[in-house]
Amino acid sequence: MKPSDTIVRVSRGHITESLHRIHLAVVDNQGTLLHGAGDPHLLTFARSTAKLIQALPVIESGAADHFGLTEAEIALCCASHNGEAEHVSTARGILGKLGYHAKHLQCGAHEPYHAPTAQAMRERGESPSTLHNNCSGKHSGMLSLSSHLGASPDTYMSPEHPVQVLMLDAVSAMSDVPKEQMELGIDGCGVPVFGMPINHLALAFARLGSPQGLSAERANACQRIVNAVRKYPQFLAGSDRFDTRLIEVTKGRVIGKMGAEGIFALSIPEQAIGFVLKVEDGNIRALYPAVTEALKQLGYLSETEVSELKEFHTPAVHNWQGTEVGRIRPDFCL
Amino acid sequence: MKPSDTIVRVSRGHITESLHRIHLAVVDNQGTLLHGAGDPHLLTFARSTAKLIQALPVIESGAADHFGLTEAEIALCCASHNGEAEHVSTARGILGKLGYHAKHLQCGAHEPYHAPTAQAMRERGESPSTLHNNCSGKHSGMLSLSSHLGASPDTYMSPEHPVQVLMLDAVSAMSDVPKEQMELGIDGCGVPVFGMPINHLALAFARLGSPQGLSAERANACQRIVNAVRKYPQFLAGSDRFDTRLIEVTKGRVIGKMGAEGIFALSIPEQAIGFVLKVEDGNIRALYPAVTEALKQLGYLSETEVSELKEFHTPAVHNWQGTEVGRIRPDFCL
Repeated sequence: MKPSDTIVRVSRGHITESLHRIHLAVVDNQGTLLHGAGDPHLLTFARSTAKLIQALPVIESGAADHFGLTEAEIALCCASHNGEAEHVSTARGILGKLGYHAKHLQCGAHEPYHAPTAQAMRERGESPSTLHNNCSGKHSGMLSLSSHLGASPDTYMSPEHPVQVLMLDAVSAMSDVPKEQMELGIDGCGVPVFGMPINHLALAFARLGSPQGLSAERANACQRIVNAVRKYPQFLAGSDRFDTRLIEVTKGRVIGKMGAEGIFALSIPEQAIGFVLKVEDGNIRALYPAVTEALKQLGYLSETEVSELKEFHTPAVHNWQGTEVGRIRPDFCL
Repeated sequence: MKPSDTIVRVSRGHITESLHRIHLAVVDNQGTLLHGAGDPHLLTFARSTAKLIQALPVIESGAADHFGLTEAEIALCCASHNGEAEHVSTARGILGKLGYHAKHLQCGAHEPYHAPTAQAMRERGESPSTLHNNCSGKHSGMLSLSSHLGASPDTYMSPEHPVQVLMLDAVSAMSDVPKEQMELGIDGCGVPVFGMPINHLALAFARLGSPQGLSAERANACQRIVNAVRKYPQFLAGSDRFDTRLIEVTKGRVIGKMGAEGIFALSIPEQAIGFVLKVEDGNIRALYPAVTEALKQLGYLSETEVSELKEFHTPAVHNWQGTEVGRIRPDFCL
C-alpha cells in the first residue's frame, strides 16, 4: 500500500486479512471538485443512489399531487427500504391510490432486508411479495407517474416507456451528463440504471440540496424531496440502517443514500455540497466505515455525530459463535 | 488501471461497475517463486485452505488408523463442505467411531452452503446442527486426534490444546514459517487460523503434493491426504462447487481448496507446484474466475478443462428477476 492509498482494512487477529479501495468525489453545486480521493472521475453505476433524482419527475409531472402522495410516501419512492411492516403498508397505500395492486409491481420479490422481519415471515411460513422488495416504493412512484401520463403500466420498466424517458431526462440534467453519453444498464429490480463519473453524480446531489439556478419547478421538486426524507428518514431505509441513522444523527443536515455495489451519494444542502463515495470492489461492508470517516475528516460530521455512528464507522467482524475476531477500519488521510 | 494490474472485472451493461485485485504466488517444492502477480509475498490468513495441512497430524499420530477412518472420512476432514446429506452422515460417522456426538463439535451451526439442501430443511422446519457447519469434518478430525492423544474434548479449540499445538507444528513445518512468526487469528468456526505470506502457503501445498525430502512418515501422510481428496472430491466441497469440479475435471491432476475471504490454495503433485491466489478484498465472487484464468494462462489447465469450468470462469450476474445484467470476467495477463 502506498501511504496515499484510500483504503478500508479488514483485520483478523493482529493483521490485515483483506482491504477495500475507495474512490471519492466532493463537489459544489457548480460541479467544482472540492475534494477527491482515488479516481474522483471514476465511471460506475449510480444504482439506487439515483432514486432521489428519479423522484423528481414524479413530483414535476403533477403525479404526486394528483394522487395526493404524502411526504412519507414520497420518501418511500426514494428508498431501498427494509421491507418492514410500515414500508410494505406504505407501498400498498401508494398503489391503492392508483387503483393498482402488488401484482402491478414488476420489481420481483425478495426477503425483507430487515433480518428480524424476514425471520418472522419465515417462521409464519409467509413468502415475500413484490411489496417487500427494497425498490417497491420506487416502482410504486414509477407507476404513479405512468398512470398520471396515461401510459401503460405493463411496460413501465422499458427504457422507451415515457416514465423511463423522463427519469433519464432528470438524471441527465441534474448530473450534467448528456443523455447520449449516459451509460445504461439494468438494475437488480429490472429498470434502467445510470452509469456516469462519480463527480457528476455528486453534482446531481449538490443540486438536489442546493437547487439555485435550476428552474423554479425543478427547485421546488428538489426541495420537496429533501423535506420528505428529512422528515421521514425511517422510510428511506429503516431500522438499524446507515442512511436512516445519518439523517437522524445530523438532524437532517446530511442526507444520503446507498446503492448496490458499494456506492453512496449524499447532499449537504446548506453547504451546497454533493459527495459520492464508491468502494472499488463493490463490497458494502467497507461503505459506511469509509463514508463516516471521510465525512469526519472533511469536517462534515462532528465528533459527537461520529460517535453516534460508531457501529457503522468501525464495525466488528464476528465468527459463527458470535466471538469478535476482527474489525473493519478506515485507514486513509484525505 | 495500469496494464500490469491483475484484476477481475464485474461488468454491468457496457462498463465495469466494480473490480477486484488479485495477488498470486506459484512456487515449486523448494519454495522457489516461479510466477507471481500483485504481491506474491502478501501476508494474509490461510483460512480453510490450511485444512489439508491440518489433516496431517490426524494421520501421523495414528488417530486415523486407530479409529479406522476411511478415505472419504479423511477427505471430509479437509473439507469446507456443503452440508449435504452425505456430508452430514459422514461427519456423524466419524464422531460415532469416537463415541462422540454432534454436541461435542464446537464449530457452531449454520445453514448448509448447498442452497437446495438449506431450502428443503427450511420447508421441513428443521434447524441446522453443528454437523451442517462446513467445518464439521475438520472438527471431527480434531476430536479424533484429541481422543487418540487422551486429551480433553472440551478445550480442543484452544491454542494450547495438544491438537492445536500439533496443527501449528505441521502448518509451520510445511510452510517454512517459524512458529513464533506465524500470525494467529480465530476462524469463523472458532479454531486458530494461520497468517503467513501467500508464497509460504503455496510452498506447503507444493510439498503436500510432492513431499520428496520430508520424513517418510510425513510424506506418507501427505500421499494419503492427496489420495483421499482425489478419490472423494465430492467430500471436499460438494455439488456445484469449484473445489470438487476442479479435481473432477482434471481427473485429480489439480487439487485445490478455497478459504473464506477469497483465498485459494492448490497443488499439482506431478509437477511439484504449489499455487495460492488471494482476492485482495476478500470477495469470493472473483476467486474462481481468477484461479481458472491463472491456471489457463500458466498452462496448468487445457482449453477443454477450462471450458468444462466455464460457469466458474466467467459467471453471469443476474438480477432479482433472473435476467442476466452483467458478467464477472478476469482481465489480466500474467
